[in-house]
Amino acid sequence: MCGIYGVVGQEEASNLVYLGLYALQHRGQEGAGIVSSDGKMLYRRRRPRLVSESFDEGSFKQLPGDMAIGHVRYSTTGTTMDKNVAPFLATGSCGTLAVAHNGTLVNFPSLRRSLEAEGALFQSTMDSEVFLHLAAMEKGDSIEEKIQRSLPKAEGAYSVLFLTESKLIAARDPHGFRPLCLGRMANGQPVLSSESCAFDLVGAKYEREIQAGEMVIIERNGEMTSIQFAKPKERKACVFEHIYFARPDSFLFGESVYKTRLRLGRALARECNVQADVVIPVPDSGMMAAMGFAEESGIPLQMGLIRNHYVGRTFIEPKQSIRGFGVKIKLNPVRSVLQGKRVVVIDDSIVRGTTCRKIVKMLRDAGASQVVFAISSPPTVSPCYYGIDTPTKEELIASNQTVEDIRAYIGADKLVYLSLQGMYDGVKGKPSEYCDACFSEKYPTKIELPYLESAQGS
Amino acid sequence: MCGIYGVVGQEEASNLVYLGLYALQHRGQEGAGIVSSDGKMLYRRRRPRLVSESFDEGSFKQLPGDMAIGHVRYSTTGTTMDKNVAPFLATGSCGTLAVAHNGTLVNFPSLRRSLEAEGALFQSTMDSEVFLHLAAMEKGDSIEEKIQRSLPKAEGAYSVLFLTESKLIAARDPHGFRPLCLGRMANGQPVLSSESCAFDLVGAKYEREIQAGEMVIIERNGEMTSIQFAKPKERKACVFEHIYFARPDSFLFGESVYKTRLRLGRALARECNVQADVVIPVPDSGMMAAMGFAEESGIPLQMGLIRNHYVGRTFIEPKQSIRGFGVKIKLNPVRSVLQGKRVVVIDDSIVRGTTCRKIVKMLRDAGASQVVFAISSPPTVSPCYYGIDTPTKEELIASNQTVEDIRAYIGADKLVYLSLQGMYDGVKGKPSEYCDACFSEKYPTKIELPYLESAQGS
Amino acid sequence: MCGIYGVVGQEEASNLVYLGLYALQHRGQEGAGIVSSDGKMLYRRRRPRLVSESFDEGSFKQLPGDMAIGHVRYSTTGTTMDKNVAPFLATGSCGTLAVAHNGTLVNFPSLRRSLEAEGALFQSTMDSEVFLHLAAMEKGDSIEEKIQRSLPKAEGAYSVLFLTESKLIAARDPHGFRPLCLGRMANGQPVLSSESCAFDLVGAKYEREIQAGEMVIIERNGEMTSIQFAKPKERKACVFEHIYFARPDSFLFGESVYKTRLRLGRALARECNVQADVVIPVPDSGMMAAMGFAEESGIPLQMGLIRNHYVGRTFIEPKQSIRGFGVKIKLNPVRSVLQGKRVVVIDDSIVRGTTCRKIVKMLRDAGASQVVFAISSPPTVSPCYYGIDTPTKEELIASNQTVEDIRAYIGADKLVYLSLQGMYDGVKGKPSEYCDACFSEKYPTKIELPYLESAQGS
Amino acid sequence: MCGIYGVVGQEEASNLVYLGLYALQHRGQEGAGIVSSDGKMLYRRRRPRLVSESFDEGSFKQLPGDMAIGHVRYSTTGTTMDKNVAPFLATGSCGTLAVAHNGTLVNFPSLRRSLEAEGALFQSTMDSEVFLHLAAMEKGDSIEEKIQRSLPKAEGAYSVLFLTESKLIAARDPHGFRPLCLGRMANGQPVLSSESCAFDLVGAKYEREIQAGEMVIIERNGEMTSIQFAKPKERKACVFEHIYFARPDSFLFGESVYKTRLRLGRALARECNVQADVVIPVPDSGMMAAMGFAEESGIPLQMGLIRNHYVGRTFIEPKQSIRGFGVKIKLNPVRSVLQGKRVVVIDDSIVRGTTCRKIVKMLRDAGASQVVFAISSPPTVSPCYYGIDTPTKEELIASNQTVEDIRAYIGADKLVYLSLQGMYDGVKGKPSEYCDACFSEKYPTKIELPYLESAQGS
Repeated sequence: MCGIYGVVGQEEASNLVYLGLYALQHRGQEGAGIVSSDGKMLYRRRRPRLVSESFDEGSFKQLPGDMAIGHVRYSTTGTTMDKNVAPFLATGSCGTLAVAHNGTLVNFPSLRRSLEAEGALFQSTMDSEVFLHLAAMEKGDSIEEKIQRSLPKAEGAYSVLFLTESKLIAARDPHGFRPLCLGRMANGQPVLSSESCAFDLVGAKYEREIQAGEMVIIERNGEMTSIQFAKPKERKACVFEHIYFARPDSFLFGESVYKTRLRLGRALARECNVQADVVIPVPDSGMMAAMGFAEESGIPLQMGLIRNHYVGRTFIEPKQSIRGFGVKIKLNPVRSVLQGKRVVVIDDSIVRGTTCRKIVKMLRDAGASQVVFAISSPPTVSPCYYGIDTPTKEELIASNQTVEDIRAYIGADKLVYLSLQGMYDGVKGKPSEYCDACFSEKYPTKIELPYLESAQGS
Repeated sequence: MCGIYGVVGQEEASNLVYLGLYALQHRGQEGAGIVSSDGKMLYRRRRPRLVSESFDEGSFKQLPGDMAIGHVRYSTTGTTMDKNVAPFLATGSCGTLAVAHNGTLVNFPSLRRSLEAEGALFQSTMDSEVFLHLAAMEKGDSIEEKIQRSLPKAEGAYSVLFLTESKLIAARDPHGFRPLCLGRMANGQPVLSSESCAFDLVGAKYEREIQAGEMVIIERNGEMTSIQFAKPKERKACVFEHIYFARPDSFLFGESVYKTRLRLGRALARECNVQADVVIPVPDSGMMAAMGFAEESGIPLQMGLIRNHYVGRTFIEPKQSIRGFGVKIKLNPVRSVLQGKRVVVIDDSIVRGTTCRKIVKMLRDAGASQVVFAISSPPTVSPCYYGIDTPTKEELIASNQTVEDIRAYIGADKLVYLSLQGMYDGVKGKPSEYCDACFSEKYPTKIELPYLESAQGS
Repeated sequence: MCGIYGVVGQEEASNLVYLGLYALQHRGQEGAGIVSSDGKMLYRRRRPRLVSESFDEGSFKQLPGDMAIGHVRYSTTGTTMDKNVAPFLATGSCGTLAVAHNGTLVNFPSLRRSLEAEGALFQSTMDSEVFLHLAAMEKGDSIEEKIQRSLPKAEGAYSVLFLTESKLIAARDPHGFRPLCLGRMANGQPVLSSESCAFDLVGAKYEREIQAGEMVIIERNGEMTSIQFAKPKERKACVFEHIYFARPDSFLFGESVYKTRLRLGRALARECNVQADVVIPVPDSGMMAAMGFAEESGIPLQMGLIRNHYVGRTFIEPKQSIRGFGVKIKLNPVRSVLQGKRVVVIDDSIVRGTTCRKIVKMLRDAGASQVVFAISSPPTVSPCYYGIDTPTKEELIASNQTVEDIRAYIGADKLVYLSLQGMYDGVKGKPSEYCDACFSEKYPTKIELPYLESAQGS
Repeated sequence: MCGIYGVVGQEEASNLVYLGLYALQHRGQEGAGIVSSDGKMLYRRRRPRLVSESFDEGSFKQLPGDMAIGHVRYSTTGTTMDKNVAPFLATGSCGTLAVAHNGTLVNFPSLRRSLEAEGALFQSTMDSEVFLHLAAMEKGDSIEEKIQRSLPKAEGAYSVLFLTESKLIAARDPHGFRPLCLGRMANGQPVLSSESCAFDLVGAKYEREIQAGEMVIIERNGEMTSIQFAKPKERKACVFEHIYFARPDSFLFGESVYKTRLRLGRALARECNVQADVVIPVPDSGMMAAMGFAEESGIPLQMGLIRNHYVGRTFIEPKQSIRGFGVKIKLNPVRSVLQGKRVVVIDDSIVRGTTCRKIVKMLRDAGASQVVFAISSPPTVSPCYYGIDTPTKEELIASNQTVEDIRAYIGADKLVYLSLQGMYDGVKGKPSEYCDACFSEKYPTKIELPYLESAQGS
């Protein structure tokens, strides 16, 4: 999962992109980067850190110009190598070109092999780099023509921003897996963002989504041309964006994320026939669904788990005395809320089950007399190949165990998942318009075997 | 405001204190320090940073031993100087002694002057250092005797932990301004903490508060002796701990903070006669009061403001284009919740009014048709001299303006403060048992003019 | 100017390359990098710093394997961009390939343009990256075949090391501009180094130079094959290596650098008819020539200038009181040696003249009654295009002014340069075997206009 | 060993002290600190690093004012604790006072114990801190009076600078063990330095030494008063300053260090009856003595060992393949100078013998047919208690072994030490005027047992 952001026609363009990335930080905490242009040259800074840690006072002096794009990167793999932090940038026949990409290309391995056979040299193992090579190898009189011709070769999920010395180009794959929004700054100039929540901070207004298969070319003066680079296929918006990934203050695929989550909670309450004294969210992921659940069920909402806002990147556990912190450092139970109570805990999904198991134990230790776990989505049975970094099938507990097995493992008195039907009631969309492969194993495209790493380091 | 923590009889004592400080981080983000003892020597590490940034893997090797105390420091003054980060430590007639202190000594200036006249040399400008000099200058056969005799000379608020090579000593001032709790680790050994919420993480159980005027001497083997070093005066527990400072999952002055805040919210709803469509908290400070308010008033609770969890220490604003972020980087409105709605916003207090003013504007910009600001405490009219870092009277808006003036300044349609009576209904205590000087200007002790800085640096 | 180093068949290969780079640090202080191979993957670490600052305890764990190459980089341009620090590394049709290069390709601009036209994308602005693209675009069954075929396309100076997962390949241009030596480790395995001085530290023995136009392919087991990839042209060894660049403890182009510099000093003494009381070197560059000069002239050698060994990378000058440090921070005069004396100062060359001017003033201030400046090489009249980072003609003082003008500018009583004939007496070589373009403006090859930067950053 | 520096009446005082410390860096590489005064407050910055690493552009803004003192610290003990880096600073009855001290107090343990008994609290384990407590505990109407009365209580070696908000005070112990010079800046204001070499860089002129037992009080306007705070005892200048410690461009105890070392070398040549082909120095410590030796003996001087100027603080050795670097990373032999030659190596002293042993092996490996080691001072048999950080008697090889044993251990063909008589010929002083305890075990004062550490950390 990643977030992308781009502005045109702005003094301090790189500083504005930094603000946008700040608001998109939830989409990727492993790295942040910005490329700016002053009409003559591109300037880059990228770091394997949070946005707030990647840039300082001096950074924006080294990122001059009135156009810029940025990227926040998410990865579950151990250490993020510097070379894999976006935006990517290279110089070739079409001048210098930078790219920031959200999504995953399912045909990356075969694309890369064929590009290598033509003599292309790769600097990273990220599929995003492919966009640069495809454009460089393509025929065309202009960079936009090269990009337009090369994009149809990429298959899978991509919302992507390109920056040259004089243009910002945005495009979205024909299925429209990942979001990409167009807004307007106070001075009328366009701004692009993965989510609409990143418009508020810079004072921009949401205008519309970039359409599936659409490519938008923005000149340095803000002039905008829209091209359909590929015929749109059936929309396959990622339903998990609504369930978990996007921020609740975003407006996504035509709907408010906040309200969608309330509805998911209400649908869950209807499906979950349970007697209880309190409904509590796993903060903050289960918050809105818990509110919807409380409202529909009439069971009062309480904050039975308090989130520690000061959790850092690293946490040093004692070697011998106490072990297995993890969730305990992030969440603390409120005994006065839980003591002697029948509790329904709400969260958005279960991945490995280890966190849920710790939460159940924590609630019981704090005196809960009954713990029901209710999940505002169906069982996650299969990995995502379109940009969300879910673990393999082996690691996904619902891929290998029944709901009853999972309940026993996490130690809850009852475990309820929302049905697929209930989920679609919540998102208010037609099932055919969403990709729900993580719940249904129905992948909208072919999937290739992964590309393997052959070099490491800085 | 500060937080203190201490353990005895624990392998990896410093790592456990680190865990405790992690859970007390909300009491001070400007600095963190730990002193440990292995029975032979004291070891210290302190940094002007968050707990998570102040210690790494190697830190605890340099903090060996089975006893340790720690401190988190709060300060509104610009840069925190290294030399002012606690615990303080010095060597003298009584060996090496470290001190971690929560509170403020109202007679620090006169105490310091008289100690200097006797030849004492000060390294910092913190009142906490006084405890070391008082003990060193005191007569007595043992360090505990020296401390016992010297404590009555200190006036004001102090919950304090001392560490020598072989003892941990805890004490609380005769008014009991600041909290200090005693718990038990799984192995039965005592643990001390500013708040009970820091017991959960290390698996300790809350036992009792250290009493006002009580001094507890704990030997390396855990043996504990309690002494009344001064006759307790009338209890003057800080009511603001319940309203704002303490974590909701703590048990404080005999009451659950969480439940107290719910009651404050309910009392506020009763006093606040208002028609509205939604109640929203300023997250997270107004959360529990908003829940109580919603419950009592029947107006539905919504999360109309979303908190950005990735806000760093520094934030780089654009120089020209957009200015005056501040709260915008921390909070974002949810348009779908606010559009066309009559909103009641709940927070715990108003200091300067600037944040409230920005929030009101933000809510109106997001479409709120009416904004009522309701505060779960009375107007803050006077600074605290007992350990909370409130600004001067000049800066406290309620010290200089009427409620109507404040309402006009922040731009709300209505502004409601909880009454003193309503507050005491909420905290369920006798007014005489609390210090409410910030609301009433009735200070339980004399106050001296402040001590001035004469040196700066590392 | 740069230094390169490579080993095969060594446990801790990367640590040994680090030692080699340490000994080659004088050839480049702007950056250091190492790439290692464990037979399966390449690992890289590079930093824009000194060798001692670029690697720490943990670095070599992340550079595993029994083969490695390294590079130290020199640059006069302001900040070194991370992306321009070698070794370069990329993955393509021929697997993953790394390159470390000493020298400059005179046809880099045209080579790059034609590679870009074929679709190649460049990550840096360094000519060294061209070697990777040339090999990737070349036909051939193996990587060594591709390299062998592609090298003849490069024109200019290059001593170069390649590393693949399973081979180390060394090559030297047909003119042999820059040195490259082959040695043997204690275990008989080959080791490659820019200079022989870097063999001593790792306990290796000097064996021979890599020949002009020779390419040596070394398998992981140490097996070595030598190929002549191009017919050697007339040898054009860089004479400035002997005069200034190489370390005196190196054996270079068949001669001891130390002895060569003594002979240059003797030749200078013969040409420089001067009466004086003391000969002093500019430490350390003029040391050996000064010893030769003293010996030949009979004038006693003294250390009239003391070098400060603790000069850091940055030096903070007072803003108003005193200005224009520069050489004063590095060198200090010894008044007791200079007072009332007629002094001959020896250095290897004059670039802009500003340092000499400061030295003359410093010597006079310290009481020298007469200052003769004697230079152990002819006037530097023209820039180097083969790897030494001399300034442009505009900046080279001898390019624009007569010897008398320079003397007047630096304020010396007399200024003597060694003649071209004297220089060749010193180096004991045939003039036709050396490139002396910086003194003669006779460039052995064509020179293209430089390639311009189009992107900056990390 | 340490270096101290102070200026008065200078804009950018702290920046000038930084320059002075730069030139005194050879006297201490373990820490650097500066305290400045703007007439109202003292400002401090200190770091456990080199001068060049301890201060940056912004540092001097935080060290404002027209008066400043500084200190460079030397220590052989593993890690330097922050708290032990000078200058020390504390606030007491006499306001805020800072101190920078070169030397060691032989009665520190008893002084500290008696100060502690009076209630003093110590922050460090450095004897320098004692000066602050002595002054604070002393009676007197002014700070200068308190210092004047307290200094006679300190026994041993001390050249010391004090800074208050409005005065700089310099003093030197009655024996005059360590140097302390007074100079004049271009604007006529006084400047103080451990060595005269630190005057050149700031454009100051050497005026005189501070006398033994003298105390100089300098007002903010530069007005200077000299007081004899104690009757001078017999001068006991440290002879080792001339032999090794001071920089050759300093003028010390009335003599040029450079010329003194030439004379020591000449004296050594006269005592050392040896046939050889070349004389080589161990650079740079043996350089001047080697020049004197060569001159007197007629044996030609060569630079047979080349010093690597880029040696960093840390150096990472291979774990298995090669071990025991140490001197090899700093020095490299020049085979062309040594091959087949009978060599005399000159150094200033032998401490443990391990370095000499490695040098002898290195020279033989490079082909030397005979290696004579000649030392320009007598055997170092006993530790210094006056400020030079020599090892204990157990570690001093000459304390436990005969010259013949040492020769055998280091593997030289012959080992020659300069005689005591020869040394005094070299320094041109009366033996009674020097402390030569490290050679003679005749300590001019009583020595107490050392004070032990009781706390560690930051």
